[in-house]
Amino acid sequence: MMTDTGRLGAALEAKLRATPTAALSAQLRRRGIDNSSIDGVHALLPGTVLVGTAKTIRYLPLREDLFAQVGGGQNAQKRAFDAVLPGEVIVIEARGVTDAATLGDILSFRALARGAAGIVTDGGVRDHDAVAAIGLPVFAASAHPAVLGRRHVPWDADLTIGCGGTTVQPGDVIAGDGDGVIVIPRAMAEDVVDAALAQEAEDQWIAARVRDGHPLAGLFPLDADWRARFEADTAAAGA
Amino acid sequence: MMTDTGRLGAALEAKLRATPTAALSAQLRRRGIDNSSIDGVHALLPGTVLVGTAKTIRYLPLREDLFAQVGGGQNAQKRAFDAVLPGEVIVIEARGVTDAATLGDILSFRALARGAAGIVTDGGVRDHDAVAAIGLPVFAASAHPAVLGRRHVPWDADLTIGCGGTTVQPGDVIAGDGDGVIVIPRAMAEDVVDAALAQEAEDQWIAARVRDGHPLAGLFPLDADWRARFEADTAAAGA
Amino acid sequence: MMTDTGRLGAALEAKLRATPTAALSAQLRRRGIDNSSIDGVHALLPGTVLVGTAKTIRYLPLREDLFAQVGGGQNAQKRAFDAVLPGEVIVIEARGVTDAATLGDILSFRALARGAAGIVTDGGVRDHDAVAAIGLPVFAASAHPAVLGRRHVPWDADLTIGCGGTTVQPGDVIAGDGDGVIVIPRAMAEDVVDAALAQEAEDQWIAARVRDGHPLAGLFPLDADWRARFEADTAAAGA
Amino acid sequence: MMTDTGRLGAALEAKLRATPTAALSAQLRRRGIDNSSIDGVHALLPGTVLVGTAKTIRYLPLREDLFAQVGGGQNAQKRAFDAVLPGEVIVIEARGVTDAATLGDILSFRALARGAAGIVTDGGVRDHDAVAAIGLPVFAASAHPAVLGRRHVPWDADLTIGCGGTTVQPGDVIAGDGDGVIVIPRAMAEDVVDAALAQEAEDQWIAARVRDGHPLAGLFPLDADWRARFEADTAAAGA
Amino acid sequence: MMTDTGRLGAALEAKLRATPTAALSAQLRRRGIDNSSIDGVHALLPGTVLVGTAKTIRYLPLREDLFAQVGGGQNAQKRAFDAVLPGEVIVIEARGVTDAATLGDILSFRALARGAAGIVTDGGVRDHDAVAAIGLPVFAASAHPAVLGRRHVPWDADLTIGCGGTTVQPGDVIAGDGDGVIVIPRAMAEDVVDAALAQEAEDQWIAARVRDGHPLAGLFPLDADWRARFEADTAAAGA
Amino acid sequence: MMTDTGRLGAALEAKLRATPTAALSAQLRRRGIDNSSIDGVHALLPGTVLVGTAKTIRYLPLREDLFAQVGGGQNAQKRAFDAVLPGEVIVIEARGVTDAATLGDILSFRALARGAAGIVTDGGVRDHDAVAAIGLPVFAASAHPAVLGRRHVPWDADLTIGCGGTTVQPGDVIAGDGDGVIVIPRAMAEDVVDAALAQEAEDQWIAARVRDGHPLAGLFPLDADWRARFEADTAAAGA
Repeated sequence: MMTDTGRLGAALEAKLRATPTAALSAQLRRRGIDNSSIDGVHALLPGTVLVGTAKTIRYLPLREDLFAQVGGGQNAQKRAFDAVLPGEVIVIEARGVTDAATLGDILSFRALARGAAGIVTDGGVRDHDAVAAIGLPVFAASAHPAVLGRRHVPWDADLTIGCGGTTVQPGDVIAGDGDGVIVIPRAMAEDVVDAALAQEAEDQWIAARVRDGHPLAGLFPLDADWRARFEADTAAAGA
Repeated sequence: MMTDTGRLGAALEAKLRATPTAALSAQLRRRGIDNSSIDGVHALLPGTVLVGTAKTIRYLPLREDLFAQVGGGQNAQKRAFDAVLPGEVIVIEARGVTDAATLGDILSFRALARGAAGIVTDGGVRDHDAVAAIGLPVFAASAHPAVLGRRHVPWDADLTIGCGGTTVQPGDVIAGDGDGVIVIPRAMAEDVVDAALAQEAEDQWIAARVRDGHPLAGLFPLDADWRARFEADTAAAGA
Repeated sequence: MMTDTGRLGAALEAKLRATPTAALSAQLRRRGIDNSSIDGVHALLPGTVLVGTAKTIRYLPLREDLFAQVGGGQNAQKRAFDAVLPGEVIVIEARGVTDAATLGDILSFRALARGAAGIVTDGGVRDHDAVAAIGLPVFAASAHPAVLGRRHVPWDADLTIGCGGTTVQPGDVIAGDGDGVIVIPRAMAEDVVDAALAQEAEDQWIAARVRDGHPLAGLFPLDADWRARFEADTAAAGA
Repeated sequence: MMTDTGRLGAALEAKLRATPTAALSAQLRRRGIDNSSIDGVHALLPGTVLVGTAKTIRYLPLREDLFAQVGGGQNAQKRAFDAVLPGEVIVIEARGVTDAATLGDILSFRALARGAAGIVTDGGVRDHDAVAAIGLPVFAASAHPAVLGRRHVPWDADLTIGCGGTTVQPGDVIAGDGDGVIVIPRAMAEDVVDAALAQEAEDQWIAARVRDGHPLAGLFPLDADWRARFEADTAAAGA
Repeated sequence: MMTDTGRLGAALEAKLRATPTAALSAQLRRRGIDNSSIDGVHALLPGTVLVGTAKTIRYLPLREDLFAQVGGGQNAQKRAFDAVLPGEVIVIEARGVTDAATLGDILSFRALARGAAGIVTDGGVRDHDAVAAIGLPVFAASAHPAVLGRRHVPWDADLTIGCGGTTVQPGDVIAGDGDGVIVIPRAMAEDVVDAALAQEAEDQWIAARVRDGHPLAGLFPLDADWRARFEADTAAAGA
Repeated sequence: MMTDTGRLGAALEAKLRATPTAALSAQLRRRGIDNSSIDGVHALLPGTVLVGTAKTIRYLPLREDLFAQVGGGQNAQKRAFDAVLPGEVIVIEARGVTDAATLGDILSFRALARGAAGIVTDGGVRDHDAVAAIGLPVFAASAHPAVLGRRHVPWDADLTIGCGGTTVQPGDVIAGDGDGVIVIPRAMAEDVVDAALAQEAEDQWIAARVRDGHPLAGLFPLDADWRARFEADTAAAGA
C-alpha cells in the first residue's frame, strides 16, 4: 500500500506550483475524490505556496507511561526530521489538537537543512514567529507555547495516517496555498494538474468576460456558443 | 414580509459608512434587538467596510439526488449573482459550514460588475487570495478549496434566511467592519445610525477625557456634571 | 491565598520580555505545571509582547435580573479599570464566549492611562481596530460588536479566576507573545525565567549547529559530547 | 420541486415499518445518496418506530423584532400543526439548537389528533416526559424547558428545509428507529425498501451462519459458494 | 447581593414540586428572564424531581501548583458538603467539563445525611450507578471515572457562580425535572409558581380540547370566546 | 512495543470485574497516569461490565480512492473480527466520529462466537437495538444507520492506536462500567486492581460512617484516629 516517495520531478513540481489548490481540488472531485483536503490548517505566512510529497509522522494521545518510555530524546519525531528527504513534506497526525505544539524552531531548521519542501500539522506550532521567519512553508492549526508532551506521544513514522479529516499516504502529493492544503494520490497527480491548468485557462477567459459585464448564464459553465468563442480565442492566441 | 430592497440613498449610506458596527449594534440593543450580528465571519482584507441592503441566497445541506437535479449549470446561486442590483449585499445561508466554499473568484467578479456592495457568507470562500484582491468587500467564515457541491445544494434566493446565528430579510441593511457584520431592519436604519453617530460623538469626547487621565466613574456613562461639560463643549464647538 | 500584586521590578520584567513564552512554558512543565497557558486567545496586533502581573475581573453568564441590578453604570468592570495599577495586566474571565465583547476602546484608553501593562480576555473585544491602534498589548478570543450585556454580567474583581482553561490568581505573572499567553506563579517567576534564558542560549547554539547541517540525534537534546562542545563554546564566548 | 405529499399506502408503509433504517440507509448509499440521515436526534422512547411522509416547518434564528411580529399567536408553527395530514411526519428545521424547545405537549396532542405519523426536530422538546407519554413517535435533539422564542422565530412551512445535516422536501419518506432517522426520496422508496428487505433476509441468513461459528471471510459478503448455499436454502424455505 | 438561604417552607416547596420546569421557565420569560436554565445537565435517574435552594461551590481549572496547595484533604468541596443545610441543593460550577468527575458516592451519602435536597453539577459524576442508587436527586453533565483533580481545583463556596450557562446565587430556588434544571430568583419564586400553576390549569384544559379534535387556532393561546368557555368550565368545576 | 495479548487469567479477571473503573482510575492516577480513560463512550445497555485485553483496529478518514481499494470485502475490520481471541476486547479507533457506524449486528455475532470479551469504539454502532440484544458488552459513542464507508476506511489492526482521547496498545487491559472505559497497562494491572480493591474496602467503611452521620472532616480521607478505628474494625472482621 506504499507508493513511491521519490521527488516529483521539476516539470510536475513547476506545474503544481502554478496551479491553485481550488483547481486541483475540483479535478479530484471529478475523479471521485471529495475528501482531498486537510482541513483546519493555514499557512503561518500569507502567500505561502507548498508542493511536495508526503513523509508522515503519527502522534498518539498523551498517556504518561508511554510518554515516559518513548517521548523524550531521539524520539520518532526527531528520527523522522533527521530522515526527511529533499522535496518531501512532513505531515503530522495530531488529531486536530490545538492546545499543544507539535514542532518548534529547531526542528523547522532541521527540515530546511534537509531540503524538505515544507511541514503540515493538524496540531500546533511553538516559537510561531521564529518558525514563520525561517522561510520554510509551514501549515498548522494553531500557535501554542507548550511542548508536544502536553498532549501527545510521538509514536511512529512512514505509515498511512489521518490528518485534518482526510488520509495521507507516504508519497502522496501535497499542495498548499491560501485556500488550504490538499492531498493528491501520486499516480493521479500528472493528470490532475494538467486538467486543472486547462480548466484554469478556461476560467480565466470566463473571468475576463465576466469583468466585461457578461452574465454567468451560458458563460459559466460555457454553453456551446461561448465554448466556440473560447476555442476560437484560444486558437488565435496560440496561432 | 418583504421589505423594500432599493438602494439606501447616498446620505444614509454615507452615515452608515462613517459609523462603527459597535455603535450601531449598541443602538439596536437599546431598541430591543440583541441578536443583530452575523457571527463567525470576518473580512478577507483588514480594514474592509461594508454597507448595503441584503439580497439573500439559501444553500441546503448536500443531498446527492437533489444536487444532481439542481446543483450544476445556471443554478440558484448563479441566477442570484446575475440578478444582484447595485448597492445590494449578497448574503448566503451556509449553516456555518467551513469545509467547503460557497463562492469563488468568477462569482465575485460578477458581483463587482453588477455593482454589488459586497458579499457575506457564513460558509467558505475558494480562490481566497484572488477574491481578496478583487476589491469587493467580502466577509466569510473560512477559506476552503472545495466547490460548494461538497456540502451544499444551492437552492433558492430572496427568502428570509438564517446566517451566522441571526435572521436576514431581503432589503435589511447590512453593515460590516473589523468587529464583524450586523443586520439592521430597513425601517430602523435612519434612526439607528443617527443615534449611533450622536453616541459616537459623546464617546469620543469621553475618550479624550479618559486619555487626559480622568477616571471612568461618573464619566462613562456621563453623570449630570460631566454631561453638562460635554454639552457645553459641544455647543462651543458648534458655535 | 492572595499573592503580592506589586510590580515585578525592572530586572525581572526585562528578563521576561526577552524570553519567549515557549521557553517559559517548558520550564513550568519541568516544575510540574502543565496547565500554564490561557488558550484560545491571540494578540490584536502581530508582534505584541506582554509582561505584567494579573489583576482579575470575573464576568458571569447573563441573567437578566442580575444584569439589571449591577450591569450598568460604574459596574465591577469599570471599577477595576479605574483601579488597575502600573504594570498590572487586566485578566477577564469570560468563559470563552466569543459572541459578545468584554471591553472596547474607552476602557482600553483608561487602562493605558493608568499604566496597565495590558489586557487578556477569553471573550471578545469591540472597536477592534480602534483598540489595536491604541498601542496597549491586548489578547482576546474574538472581535465582536456587541456590548458585554449580551452575554455577561460583570460581577467582581481581584478573585482567583479561570481564564482560557487555566487558573489566574491576582499577582500571578502574565507573559504573552506570538505563541499565546501563559501564567507563572509569582514565587517561581525569577527561577523560571533564569532557567528559560539559559535554555534559550543552549537552544540557539543547537539551532546554529542544525543550520550547519548536523542531525538532531545526539544534538537535541545535547548528549555528553555535544554538551562538552557547547560548554567550551560558551566558556570561550564568555572569556 | 414539490413531490406528492399523499400517504404512502398500506403496503409500502408496512414494508417500511418492517425494515431497519440501517438497511434502508445502505440501499440509499448504493444509489448514490450518502447524506440521507438526520443526525443528532433520538427517539424520546426506546423502541420507537417511525414511518411517514414529511411536512416541513422552518424556524429562523431569534431576531427580536421579527419574533414580535410573527412569533406569537397562531404562528407558522401552529398553522402547520393544524394542517398536518394523516400519515405525515412534521419535520422541523431548528439548526441543531439544543437550548430551547421547538414544541411541547399541546402541539403533540394536536399532531396525534390530526393523525400525524410523528414528529422530528433537530431542536429541543419541552414537557419531555409528558410528550413521551402521548404515544406519538417523536425524535428530537434534546429536552429543554424554554419556549421556542428563546432562540427561534417560527417562520414558514412546506418548503424544502435542512434538518440534522441533510435536506428534507415535503413528501419525502421519513423512517426512524433506534439508529436514528433517515430521509428517502418518495420516488425511490418502493425500490429501496424492496432491496433492503431482500438484503435483510440475506443478512439474517449470514448472521445465523456466523452464530454457528463460521468466519466472515467468504461469508460476509457472500462469495460464490456461500451464495449458492444461501440461494438453495432460500429456495427450499420458499418451496 | 446574598439572598436568604433558608428553606422554602412546605407550601412553596409543594407547589414547586407540582409544577413542571417548562411552566416555571415560561413565567420567568414573561418577567424578563430568558436565561434561567442550567443547560447540558440531566438527572441520573428518569423521573427525578428536584426542588430546593442553592448552595454553591466553585471549581477552577486545574493548575498543578494550586491543586497541590488546596486540592486534597478537607478541601473546599468537602467543607461545603459538610456544611450543606436541609433543603439546600449543592450547585457546582465545573465549566461544563465532562472528562472528570466532580463528586462520587461518599459525598452523595454525606449530602443525603445532611438532608440536602439534591446536587446539580455541570461536570461529571463518578460511581455513577452507585450515586444513582442512593435516592438523592442528582443532575450532572456526564459520568466519568476520574477524580476531580484531573481537571479541577476545588476552590471556594457560597459565591455567586456560573453553571450550565446561567448564573446561580446562593439562596436561588433550583427546580429540576425531565426537561432539565432552572434557577428562580428567591424573591420571585412565589409569584412565578402561582402563575405557572394557573397557566398549567389553563394548558391542561386546552390540551383536553385539543385531544377532542379542536384546532389550535383561537384555542392556543385562548381567544376571547375560548377564554369565556374556559372560565365557565373552571367556575363550574370550582362551584 | 507490543505487550502480551494473552488472557488475563481467571483470578485477575475476577478481581477486575469486582472493581469499579472509578477505583481503578484513581490508582492509575497515583501511579502517574491521568489519561487512562476512553472518553465519550457509553455502554449500549445499562449495567454492562467489561473486562478483557485489547485487540486494536484502526480506521482512517474516508478517502474515496483508498476506500475503493480496501474498504469492501474481507477488509481489515473483518479480518480482525475473524481473528479476535477469547477474552480480547476489540477496540476501534474512529476519531470520535459519530455520524457513521463502525460495526453492526453481524460483526457483533462474530465477536461473540469467537469468545471476545466485548467491543469499544469511539465511533457509532448500527443495528443498535439488535447489537444491544446480543449480550456482548459494547461501548460506543453513538448509534447511526450508515455503514462505515460513509466516513472511514478500515485500514489495519494490532497497532497501538488512539481511542477516545487516550492511547491503547494491543494487550492493554480494558475495563468498563457505568462510568465509562479505562485502559490499564498490562504490567500494572495486578498491582492496580489489588490497590483498588483495598481502597474500595476503605471507602465502603467510610461510606458506612458517612451514612451514620459523621462529617467528612477527618474521615475522608482518614486521619490517624479514624484510620486506627478502620484498622481495628477490619482486623475484627477478619478475625
